[in-house]
Amino acid sequence: MSSNLPGELALIDYIRARLGSPTDASVILGIGDDAALLAPAPGQQLVLSTDTLVAGIHFPHDTSAFDVGWKTLAVNLSDLAAMGARPRWCSLNLSLPALDRGWLQGFFDGFLALAALHPLQLVGGDSTRSSEIVVTLTVFGEIAPGMALRRSGAQAGDSVWVSGWPGEAAAGLALTLDRASTTTPAHARLRARLDRPQPRLALGAALCGLATAAMDVSDGLLLDLDRLCAASGCGAVLELESLPISQDLRALERPSAVRDWILGGGDDYELLFTVSPHNEARLPQLARALGLPLHRIGQLTAGTHVQVMDATGAPVSIRQRGYVHHHS
Amino acid sequence: MSSNLPGELALIDYIRARLGSPTDASVILGIGDDAALLAPAPGQQLVLSTDTLVAGIHFPHDTSAFDVGWKTLAVNLSDLAAMGARPRWCSLNLSLPALDRGWLQGFFDGFLALAALHPLQLVGGDSTRSSEIVVTLTVFGEIAPGMALRRSGAQAGDSVWVSGWPGEAAAGLALTLDRASTTTPAHARLRARLDRPQPRLALGAALCGLATAAMDVSDGLLLDLDRLCAASGCGAVLELESLPISQDLRALERPSAVRDWILGGGDDYELLFTVSPHNEARLPQLARALGLPLHRIGQLTAGTHVQVMDATGAPVSIRQRGYVHHHS
Repeated sequence: MSSNLPGELALIDYIRARLGSPTDASVILGIGDDAALLAPAPGQQLVLSTDTLVAGIHFPHDTSAFDVGWKTLAVNLSDLAAMGARPRWCSLNLSLPALDRGWLQGFFDGFLALAALHPLQLVGGDSTRSSEIVVTLTVFGEIAPGMALRRSGAQAGDSVWVSGWPGEAAAGLALTLDRASTTTPAHARLRARLDRPQPRLALGAALCGLATAAMDVSDGLLLDLDRLCAASGCGAVLELESLPISQDLRALERPSAVRDWILGGGDDYELLFTVSPHNEARLPQLARALGLPLHRIGQLTAGTHVQVMDATGAPVSIRQRGYVHHHS
Repeated sequence: MSSNLPGELALIDYIRARLGSPTDASVILGIGDDAALLAPAPGQQLVLSTDTLVAGIHFPHDTSAFDVGWKTLAVNLSDLAAMGARPRWCSLNLSLPALDRGWLQGFFDGFLALAALHPLQLVGGDSTRSSEIVVTLTVFGEIAPGMALRRSGAQAGDSVWVSGWPGEAAAGLALTLDRASTTTPAHARLRARLDRPQPRLALGAALCGLATAAMDVSDGLLLDLDRLCAASGCGAVLELESLPISQDLRALERPSAVRDWILGGGDDYELLFTVSPHNEARLPQLARALGLPLHRIGQLTAGTHVQVMDATGAPVSIRQRGYVHHHS
């Protein structure tokens, strides 16, 4: 950690106190020197991902500090999940308008609540002043050579699957922006899907050697499927009737909006993946073992078109394929 | 790379085109998937550091895009230099108010000009919108186990050394803020010391097994010496008469300001290090080999006080021991 937020030396002390001593022998030297020193496991490959979250863009301004801390880590772990990697270390860059102790405590409460569920150590970072909250996290995982899930391994004939209930986070955001709406337990659950995504690390690990391609859904199901297909050099047919609709989404009684959220909403952080036909039969058992719904939503095709079809096999025109983060 | 800057897909294409294909076999998978895949060298430890730069705080608003790109990489490589590590990979998070092609081209011109001097590959990142320029770089190096330079290995009796000409960057900043001043070649050289720091990687590598402790000087010589002494559990006497004063600083004819810049100015990115008495004789030859001045500026003592003494041995009171980044 170095420089620049007023009282930042005290901030480092606070963070070190919150973290305690590294419990993982792979951390030779943690926060406090010019750099961290880490001992990677012999024979493993490193998996590296990083994401920046900006207040008002990647989370609404009314998001609690706890949820900002949780989400910062969650969206990064989701990228490791999409590779099938095991999380190991991370570094954190906090740019903040002011040194607000209450906010920082909440942030680390949320961050550490999620970190504690995984063998993950915060080993470095930086803090600076800025006119708005900008948080960058960089995560490092490990995986055996040749085992990583990529976007590029799928081929025509593979089936397309998604975990969980895409669209719920987008619904949570829409209900937040529509401030006139009543707050119900269902609304709170949808908002929690926006604020506290669950990185699908166990699923990602289980898909190594099983899925032909995988990625996490962060910018909308259709847009991300476009990307997977582009990387794999194939097209896809998505079956509208096969899309999973959660109880909370169904209860909103806004089927058109719900369809848009499922297909084009962002912030799902579910895994989108493809499986060869001869492996499809293994997925129901995997879903039961993980306690996580896995839905078959379509099939890859030759060509480059990604189409949505209704129950009659007719193509459906989609207004928005993905989600450009921009809310307040 | 993922999400959120308008036209960001095109930005990734631009960056990938600028980078070309990874030339280093350690990069199994670079930019474009959920995460990068890297193969660390067998038996090496990882060295990890990260720094965030905010416009108007870490560089003046008038800094060219080229220099922002250069400096972003330089300040991070300086941390690796301070550990004696060999740079390998990095990830880049750009938060920008707008997608300005000219600015981005300049930024990558500067970034890649410095990157090309080292075996370093950009392997991942993120881009987001923000109300001001916030750039985070995370760098990864490698080093043999047990060889890393730390802040904590020094002891009383070791001599204190600094590379290059500390204070020049602070002078460059002061001349910039004093807009009335004439621009001379000397002023331009001082400003270049602020904008294009030279990470002392060759020196850091040479100090492994030679220096007892090391760190880079980013927040002011005295403040950083305080930190090194605190980490090593000792005090120090800094000899005012031994401080190196460059020709350009001397020519300013402002001895009092120059002393403040040398002792308390920021952004030097020189190495501050300590050496056992029996190794001091090796340093002049090292300086010649590197073409880099190395100055002995004091000695470590028992206790915890870090003092500055004049030629008569009398303690000197110092107004500002370090530098809190805050300029415009």
